[in-house]
Amino acid sequence: MARWEPNASERLQEAALGLFRERGYDRTTVEEIAARAGLTERTFFRYFSDKREVLFAGAKALEKLVTGAVAGAAANVAPLDAVAAAFEATAPLFETRRPYARERQALVLAHPELQERELIKLAALAAAVTESLEKRGLGKTRAGLVAEAGIAIFKHAFERWLDDAKKRDLAHHVRAVLSELRHVTAAPAARTTARRATRRRSTA
Amino acid sequence: MARWEPNASERLQEAALGLFRERGYDRTTVEEIAARAGLTERTFFRYFSDKREVLFAGAKALEKLVTGAVAGAAANVAPLDAVAAAFEATAPLFETRRPYARERQALVLAHPELQERELIKLAALAAAVTESLEKRGLGKTRAGLVAEAGIAIFKHAFERWLDDAKKRDLAHHVRAVLSELRHVTAAPAARTTARRATRRRSTA
Repeated sequence: MARWEPNASERLQEAALGLFRERGYDRTTVEEIAARAGLTERTFFRYFSDKREVLFAGAKALEKLVTGAVAGAAANVAPLDAVAAAFEATAPLFETRRPYARERQALVLAHPELQERELIKLAALAAAVTESLEKRGLGKTRAGLVAEAGIAIFKHAFERWLDDAKKRDLAHHVRAVLSELRHVTAAPAARTTARRATRRRSTA
Repeated sequence: MARWEPNASERLQEAALGLFRERGYDRTTVEEIAARAGLTERTFFRYFSDKREVLFAGAKALEKLVTGAVAGAAANVAPLDAVAAAFEATAPLFETRRPYARERQALVLAHPELQERELIKLAALAAAVTESLEKRGLGKTRAGLVAEAGIAIFKHAFERWLDDAKKRDLAHHVRAVLSELRHVTAAPAARTTARRATRRRSTA
């Protein structure tokens, strides 16, 4: 008989992280995670499809927040600014969880199967953001390009946030990385025009 | 005893695609692929780690070509232009293979396990391009952003190329998508400046 367990998802996540830390990710079983949380394996599988999934518990909430913010952005906001602002808005989700996020990141980097799952979650997030942008009237290619640029900004901002000795929030890093993206994708037109002008003067 | 088999990789790819077409991807086994190619399963596994991998046979060659072109670009070429030109240079790899590429794409889209493998290959390509850009002196974040923008351009250009009724080559589509990316990532500064100027005039 299924019983309702208060905070089951959080208890399972905490138990899993504790075990991964003590025994290593590979040597931890779902059975052990459930036991440490004082729950059954059946309850575990009501919340997570497998052991990996415990580390991606926040993915759906993140997607909802980001796509909601994109959909709600004012019509005159440029698409990339809408997406960057949506990722800025996720900062409070992470703010109190920097130590957890660091530990999680190290685990993901050390296990190819977790990296795979992360790629799939990011691709799903990109698809959801693309859809939100299409609803704002953007064409398929442009919506995809902006969404993927947004994911790239988020990823790099997140890495910088994890390592930031000054402990600035994620929103700060999203803005900084957006500005770097704009710098590196800008057409080198200004430079070319300047060069052409110089050449014209020298041949005149 | 291992025998050298001429064109074993190509024969296995062709056999696999034929079987996927006739019986479906899921119902085809490695044993059947090897048999149709007139080869043994052992030979199959000398070329491919599993059934999925047959559809990603060109990934290494693609990576080598792209990273080589990025490394070889003139020092004064902007990083994103170097990466886009590198992807333009892959056009001849695909030119004669549009029907195959279309069939392959449909298979990938229909099978989550193939989509996963595709994500992993694209992430590996992004990592390799990031490394080439770092060797050109770009910082970690910028190298990553440019590489990921390059992959996004390549992906969307490839989709357009697959569907192009006018049969323009991949290089054409890479240039067109690069230009769209620049359009959607450009800072809305010009617009803002114009709006401010209007406001200033109207309040004067």
